[in-house]
Amino acid sequence: MEPVNQFELSKEFLDRFGEAIEANDDQFVKESLQGVNPADISALLHEFDEQESKYVLGLIDVETGAEIINGLDGDTRIQFLKEFDISEISTYINYLDSDDAADIVNGLPIKIRERVIDSLENEEKAANVLDLLRYDEDCAGGLMAKELIKANAKWTIGKTIEEIRRQAEDVQKVYAIYVVDDRDKLLGRVSLKRIVLAEDHVKVSAIYDQDVVSVETYQDEVEVASLMSKYDLEALPVINLQGKLVGRITIDDIVDVITEMAEQERQLMAGISEDVEEDDSVWMLTRARLPWLVIGMIGGLLGALFMETFENNINFTLTFFIPLIMATGGNVGIQSSTLVVQGLANKTAFSQTTAKRLWKVFWVAILNGVLLAAMVLLGVQFLLGNEFKLALVVSIALLSVVLLASFMGTATPLILDKFGINPALASGPFITTANDLLGLAVYFGVAHLLYSI
Amino acid sequence: MEPVNQFELSKEFLDRFGEAIEANDDQFVKESLQGVNPADISALLHEFDEQESKYVLGLIDVETGAEIINGLDGDTRIQFLKEFDISEISTYINYLDSDDAADIVNGLPIKIRERVIDSLENEEKAANVLDLLRYDEDCAGGLMAKELIKANAKWTIGKTIEEIRRQAEDVQKVYAIYVVDDRDKLLGRVSLKRIVLAEDHVKVSAIYDQDVVSVETYQDEVEVASLMSKYDLEALPVINLQGKLVGRITIDDIVDVITEMAEQERQLMAGISEDVEEDDSVWMLTRARLPWLVIGMIGGLLGALFMETFENNINFTLTFFIPLIMATGGNVGIQSSTLVVQGLANKTAFSQTTAKRLWKVFWVAILNGVLLAAMVLLGVQFLLGNEFKLALVVSIALLSVVLLASFMGTATPLILDKFGINPALASGPFITTANDLLGLAVYFGVAHLLYSI
Repeated sequence: MEPVNQFELSKEFLDRFGEAIEANDDQFVKESLQGVNPADISALLHEFDEQESKYVLGLIDVETGAEIINGLDGDTRIQFLKEFDISEISTYINYLDSDDAADIVNGLPIKIRERVIDSLENEEKAANVLDLLRYDEDCAGGLMAKELIKANAKWTIGKTIEEIRRQAEDVQKVYAIYVVDDRDKLLGRVSLKRIVLAEDHVKVSAIYDQDVVSVETYQDEVEVASLMSKYDLEALPVINLQGKLVGRITIDDIVDVITEMAEQERQLMAGISEDVEEDDSVWMLTRARLPWLVIGMIGGLLGALFMETFENNINFTLTFFIPLIMATGGNVGIQSSTLVVQGLANKTAFSQTTAKRLWKVFWVAILNGVLLAAMVLLGVQFLLGNEFKLALVVSIALLSVVLLASFMGTATPLILDKFGINPALASGPFITTANDLLGLAVYFGVAHLLYSI
Repeated sequence: MEPVNQFELSKEFLDRFGEAIEANDDQFVKESLQGVNPADISALLHEFDEQESKYVLGLIDVETGAEIINGLDGDTRIQFLKEFDISEISTYINYLDSDDAADIVNGLPIKIRERVIDSLENEEKAANVLDLLRYDEDCAGGLMAKELIKANAKWTIGKTIEEIRRQAEDVQKVYAIYVVDDRDKLLGRVSLKRIVLAEDHVKVSAIYDQDVVSVETYQDEVEVASLMSKYDLEALPVINLQGKLVGRITIDDIVDVITEMAEQERQLMAGISEDVEEDDSVWMLTRARLPWLVIGMIGGLLGALFMETFENNINFTLTFFIPLIMATGGNVGIQSSTLVVQGLANKTAFSQTTAKRLWKVFWVAILNGVLLAAMVLLGVQFLLGNEFKLALVVSIALLSVVLLASFMGTATPLILDKFGINPALASGPFITTANDLLGLAVYFGVAHLLYSI
């Protein structure tokens, strides 16, 4: 009837499901999960503890169970698998693609990793998982699965279809058949559609596409993600240094990489030092937030010390505008660094040269700064009455702070990027604190200069 | 030889290519673009003006040319197409999938849209494009392509393969065959792999998968993106209100949606009011940045006014700690709102209740606040000597500001989200400015209270 098979979870269902677990009501649990997508069951299990989840999983067939385990969050899964013995874990892993299997094995305590792999029934899978464990998680080798379908260029289509039948059993999603030579060197690709459309006696070499984009095992996941999104690829073959086909990366993994990258950048910008989520413990959240707050605090204390040295030189009224100066400097700085970070993320073939960039930033800053300074000049006059000299000092200081913050906001991410550090850090609290202090210094510097004229 | 077909652009090549264009050196241009991926040619053309690009495109076959035009940035493409007359545009569009064609037609001046569609050679394509123009760009209908392969559940595999041969010509990438009834109602899907593996005489109804996730035309792109990434789908069928299959969304479009969402959020956080990039004009960049800076400035002036009213009540030394109070409030606020925004983005089946969320935030704030306040108590004593009362005032004010900023940072995105506004706005300058003022008020309020005891 209803083709849309999305599982709708309600508070009522959750309560009822919890009761069923407590009462060991096998029938209710089984029936209510009938035909539900494993990804939805994973989400459901996050609401229950390890023993409860294990009970539910015991009522589901092993293949679906494997997908459910695969769909659990990293931390939840690690906790959950502690409830299982080695043979149980390997039974589930047997049903997963090598890349997912390797991810799960990677989360296990080092002591039992090898024992889990040893007890895998499928020897080829065991060898594949062992092989994948060698790679860093954030490079192409760490993202790829060993399962793929390949055809020798010399084969006919008939023979290839036979081979596909044989190989396809292990491969969940066939996007393309990779074409290799006798030594497994990647030559190109041919789509399943083209094979379906071709005559049986035609040779693969006659119809395959030589223009195939591939990556090498050591390439970074960010590079892989940008390649796949640039060329609109749903799968990407991975080759080793000898050009041999060793694996395949699929787009679903890249979607995860892109989402993680955005999350990481967001946390860097907000000054959260560990990868935490809202549902982590109070202690973990505090630990992730405190370091940056302490840096900001030290900056604030240094600011106080700095103002103390000016104590006898500054007009009390000047301090009224500290919030204005600091806020504007902060806003300009974060706007500038965000544009640079965005530019670096969407690197086109030729990015602008640093000099050209700074030149343009300079003009934008002049324009913004002069307009803001003019408004402040009028605003101060209007708010505090006839205090022209004060208004002039604040305006000129504001213009200087806008220029400085623009320059710092542009240069810092560029410099960080040059050193291979994520440029989003430039919008984080460390640099912001440094900017605050600089802004304060400029403000009082300008005031001191102008009042002494 | 080299299976990695990535086009490497160098400054030298760019100069040489530019010279060739100027000299009308057809041969060099043709040869150097031989076998290059259209996406790379699009990137290359961004370095040249419209006339130059048109000259290059004239030397390339129309099918590749269509892909190159499709790969251009929105703004660049609109400028570029001004160089073409209606029949030229429709010749290129003829080669594109209906969704890409509709996107391009959408960017044309209204006057010529219909004329372009009328002059499309392929009448089915014309009807499809016209149909797609009805949908909003950011809903499922606006993302889908009309090209897909469908099979009636009653057909045999043999007949289906024949039909695939017929239909596949129009479809660039076949992920799955959608199964429908006589009235085109979506029943399920069957993978191409399964069809290749099945015997010719088997009926589609015997092997298709009923568990298919689909969306309706009006569903929002964000919803579509989260469904596809949750269920690891590479294509998603779109149905209308009657359950009829009307189109298909592919993962490459969703990758773009996810990337755009991240960019939008980043700009909201940084207070950039228009969608600008580093290479936009100085004037556009200024216009995008100024509104938020003015809001910040007005906040700053209000802060000055506020302090003026306290003028006779506050100790001069108190002003030393304005930077500390403001910076800490800002940092705590942005950390809190970022965690909430992240939590809202990764909505699990049951999100935490608002009360539970605020309760936890309260404890994290207490912990962070007390630790910071203690450090400040010692820090002020150490820096400014024996000023215990001042140190106490600053510490207590700091703790209050941390609590307030945590609460505001958590509540604001939740409230924005309730009203259907992007919660990332909460980290932007408007809310930040409001927080600054509140922080200032709390600081002087606490100081006033404690000094008058």
